[in-house]
Amino acid sequence: MSHFAIFGAGSFGTALAVTLARQGHRVTLIGRDEKTMTELNTKRENTRYLPGVLLHPNIVCTNDLGQGIHVDYLLLSVPTQFMRDACVQVRTIAPASFYKSTSVIHVAKGLERVTGKRVSEVILETLPALSASRLAVLSGPSHAEELAQNVPTTLVATSASKSYAEEIQDVFMSDTLRVYTNPDLIGVELGGALKNIIALGAGISDGLGFGDNARAALITRGLVEIARLGVALGASTATFGGLTGIGDLIVTCTSRLSRNWNAGYLLGQGMSIAEVLPKIGMVVEGATTTKVAVEKAKSLAVTMPIAEAISDLLDDNCSPREAVLGLMNRKKTHEVEERFVEASIGWTTQ
Amino acid sequence: MSHFAIFGAGSFGTALAVTLARQGHRVTLIGRDEKTMTELNTKRENTRYLPGVLLHPNIVCTNDLGQGIHVDYLLLSVPTQFMRDACVQVRTIAPASFYKSTSVIHVAKGLERVTGKRVSEVILETLPALSASRLAVLSGPSHAEELAQNVPTTLVATSASKSYAEEIQDVFMSDTLRVYTNPDLIGVELGGALKNIIALGAGISDGLGFGDNARAALITRGLVEIARLGVALGASTATFGGLTGIGDLIVTCTSRLSRNWNAGYLLGQGMSIAEVLPKIGMVVEGATTTKVAVEKAKSLAVTMPIAEAISDLLDDNCSPREAVLGLMNRKKTHEVEERFVEASIGWTTQ
Repeated sequence: MSHFAIFGAGSFGTALAVTLARQGHRVTLIGRDEKTMTELNTKRENTRYLPGVLLHPNIVCTNDLGQGIHVDYLLLSVPTQFMRDACVQVRTIAPASFYKSTSVIHVAKGLERVTGKRVSEVILETLPALSASRLAVLSGPSHAEELAQNVPTTLVATSASKSYAEEIQDVFMSDTLRVYTNPDLIGVELGGALKNIIALGAGISDGLGFGDNARAALITRGLVEIARLGVALGASTATFGGLTGIGDLIVTCTSRLSRNWNAGYLLGQGMSIAEVLPKIGMVVEGATTTKVAVEKAKSLAVTMPIAEAISDLLDDNCSPREAVLGLMNRKKTHEVEERFVEASIGWTTQ
Repeated sequence: MSHFAIFGAGSFGTALAVTLARQGHRVTLIGRDEKTMTELNTKRENTRYLPGVLLHPNIVCTNDLGQGIHVDYLLLSVPTQFMRDACVQVRTIAPASFYKSTSVIHVAKGLERVTGKRVSEVILETLPALSASRLAVLSGPSHAEELAQNVPTTLVATSASKSYAEEIQDVFMSDTLRVYTNPDLIGVELGGALKNIIALGAGISDGLGFGDNARAALITRGLVEIARLGVALGASTATFGGLTGIGDLIVTCTSRLSRNWNAGYLLGQGMSIAEVLPKIGMVVEGATTTKVAVEKAKSLAVTMPIAEAISDLLDDNCSPREAVLGLMNRKKTHEVEERFVEASIGWTTQ
């Protein structure tokens, strides 16, 4: 059995702590606030982020990052926009031996606002002594509440190193948690980030009072365009059709708990983003991601009509209804770009 | 403007009649029962299959198939298992001129039980004088109720002939109905049929009381295996990621109206298929499709663990819980088969 440190005691970090502890691992759960972490340690319940779930005896809670350094695995579970800062904190206290004996995993889904970078890029940039072959990403369709309650769940492990991805698969896999590996690290990270654009879009459609047909179309065509951007950025189309792409998107778009869907819903009902943000009360990752994606798409000459319409809406350049009708009335087109259809299929002759 | 005959006055046939009539076309809506069709003509509402929707004045209702022969387009909207019989009826009365002046469209989603054939194969076999280049398929995520109420909807048109598919795109496209073309006729037909297997599976998971994580995993992994079978049968993977694949699947799996999802839900709650069928009161297309797909997969050496587990459950060979746990505990694997990942992405070196 191994010793894990989990940096970030939000709902997903806590759920992973419970999952790992239950499988016999030793877990040090690290949060920022001393009082909160002391309380967690005595109460044995994360009442704020994961109420109703008992913290397994194998879990020790602390606000001392130093206790996360001499471990087998350091799992980073902080929000995307705090990842750079979290890594700086690690770098400040980590001795040279850390980079030899500790492996790193991250579970953040987003793109850094200022740089547009993927989370693993931010980590490797901030911890230059960390080998890419000891950094893994764990992602997929996983509400923390369900993971913690042992409801069947699937995740995907990826890394620059195949053997390290398979090691992570081995460590996490259980009767109710099935882990797949995927070599496409770029695609796994982009899928988890870009899906939030479409969650916003699905919320907008629902907020307008449109139906299942419109939402399904938005999700499907949204997936086509995020895959298009992903491929231009070095990902494989297949990954967007997998658990970290469409799988995660289904969970996000069909759950009323999703912040991004909720923000979209309020936009669809006619609120401006300035009115929506205080209502949601947390960072709406999808708004940031939309801006970053539209900029990247422009510079790479990738067409993203749905993301562009949402971006216009976020800038108050159009109403939600205008945005959707604009999408419906684009010039007629084929569903699948010809380069993605095997030459042997259809229309080779008239 | 053109003259359409729609054979099949169910909910989707009626919704298409309303849509086309609204766009200015002349529509003859043909059903089997004289009394019903006479009533439809006077009441101007299909109270049984599409209540609350006014039949546009451009629609004439009849039980005389002869009125569907001298038209520009004959749209076949009968259930899959009745398609052969419907085509025999057409053949019996159609003069040679029919095959020169009338084009055909079908909207059925399924595989013929006895032969395992796709609907377009059944049509061309039964109407040998019909040119494949004048037969189109229209499919996609479309509740009839929403289509009839002008809620934004997308569809896909496909045919052996590119120009005929584009003609159908032109005819159906409107402000609220966006039509894409796709050259992959096999994939479009298989997606619409095989999605019902996964709808059953999603229902089973929900009936067992599992959560969003499990359902998203089932939908995503289900999509991977129906795409795998589809490719073996000549389809393109990309089509399964499109509107007639994942798009239609999202509508089917997130709507409580879906017969197949409902049948799965009751199976998940512990009923046998013999108890479920009378409860649903209609053909559960997914049960037939599962059997046909598992047989095809076996003969082509395609792995379909989810379809096989559902098939075992339908045969009362295992409980729903055993079926799901069996899926969770399969040997560890990669998410994407290596042949689908571009050689340039990930793990080319360790």
